[in-house]
Amino acid sequence: MSEHIVTSFDQDLERIDKLIRDMGELGAEMVADATRALLSSDEPLAQRIVSEDVIMDARQRELDDAAIALIAKRQPMAQDLRTVIGAIRIAADLERIGDLAKNVAKRVPSAGGSTIPKPLSGSLQTMSELVLAQVRRAIAMYASRDAEGLVSLREDDERIDIQYTSLFRELLTYMMEDPRNITSCTHLIFCAKNLERIGDHVTNIAENGYYTLTGQQLPATRPKADETAAAQG
Amino acid sequence: MSEHIVTSFDQDLERIDKLIRDMGELGAEMVADATRALLSSDEPLAQRIVSEDVIMDARQRELDDAAIALIAKRQPMAQDLRTVIGAIRIAADLERIGDLAKNVAKRVPSAGGSTIPKPLSGSLQTMSELVLAQVRRAIAMYASRDAEGLVSLREDDERIDIQYTSLFRELLTYMMEDPRNITSCTHLIFCAKNLERIGDHVTNIAENGYYTLTGQQLPATRPKADETAAAQG
Repeated sequence: MSEHIVTSFDQDLERIDKLIRDMGELGAEMVADATRALLSSDEPLAQRIVSEDVIMDARQRELDDAAIALIAKRQPMAQDLRTVIGAIRIAADLERIGDLAKNVAKRVPSAGGSTIPKPLSGSLQTMSELVLAQVRRAIAMYASRDAEGLVSLREDDERIDIQYTSLFRELLTYMMEDPRNITSCTHLIFCAKNLERIGDHVTNIAENGYYTLTGQQLPATRPKADETAAAQG
Repeated sequence: MSEHIVTSFDQDLERIDKLIRDMGELGAEMVADATRALLSSDEPLAQRIVSEDVIMDARQRELDDAAIALIAKRQPMAQDLRTVIGAIRIAADLERIGDLAKNVAKRVPSAGGSTIPKPLSGSLQTMSELVLAQVRRAIAMYASRDAEGLVSLREDDERIDIQYTSLFRELLTYMMEDPRNITSCTHLIFCAKNLERIGDHVTNIAENGYYTLTGQQLPATRPKADETAAAQG
């Protein structure tokens, strides 16, 4: 933690922190709703996610403006400056999480609901739950300034990648079994990929959060199960 | 343009600008090479792209460190501060462009070369050329501080989206014709999607560049051909 006493800087920063928490909660809700809309073919819910993304974008702009105003006004140094730049970056990842949830929602008419075989629904649900837990943990750990927790968060992304690879293969099988599955399964592959990418953004948040809290970079690369074998999608 | 005379700030900023130009050139090269590797099934070239991405990541870190040091040391206001924050954002988009090119390269063993039917190769080539032209224009316009050019750049992204939609449909057709095409075509759909996303990052660069140069935001939404119809992938 930085050593300055409670100042106007902290009050300004608290506003930015609150925006991050709000964006994080909204992002988690969008991910949960997008999966629910997809699995139950709920088009009105899918529509709602599209409008929630507008709110997400507006929050990001608000945060960016607040962060830039804070830097200009308070001219923070070292740790404080890192915190503000880190907040800008984390907001960008949260905004992308919203975009990806919206993209899943937009595929509901093409891929959702009764056309999805039960075992596949189960795999999608499992993957979505893993991702959702990561999003929620990221926000909680950032809010509680838990640097060590953020390290474990990044490591846990591997479970999402493994689940994605398994789901990718499952989807290919359905496509090969019956060409009538090809269009919907292609959309589902994108939905699965979007969930996997949400996991990557959580990893970015963990890395940025760690840097913000400690001033140290986490090592640039970690083993990435999704990319080690080219055949995995 | 800001009104300060040539100062140490400008010299520090020139270093950041140079890093952006370098990253932009590297990104364009990676996109061109990735497409070439894919279409000619050139695995050594694909391998080279993977190592170029390491350089890209290192450049981004270098730029980030330089930008944060510049803010801390020079405490820039208004326009200058926007320029520095804008550079951090543009570097993040360029780094993502490198990632996406790398992801195309990683799919070469699963999807590349002789297995790709000629008409499909042609469509991929066309799409790649559109994207490559946009990447190169973005960097040139940012370097020459051409705000109006950046607006037109964003509008031209629609051509990429249209090409993507057409390519997506073409790939679905090949998959339906022969189930043996399913695995390779699924990888090619991801390659096409990656190119489309590179176009989106160019759009981000245009928006950030415009904000940096003018202090104005471009309107948040533009018509997005790729997303208006859910069936397009």
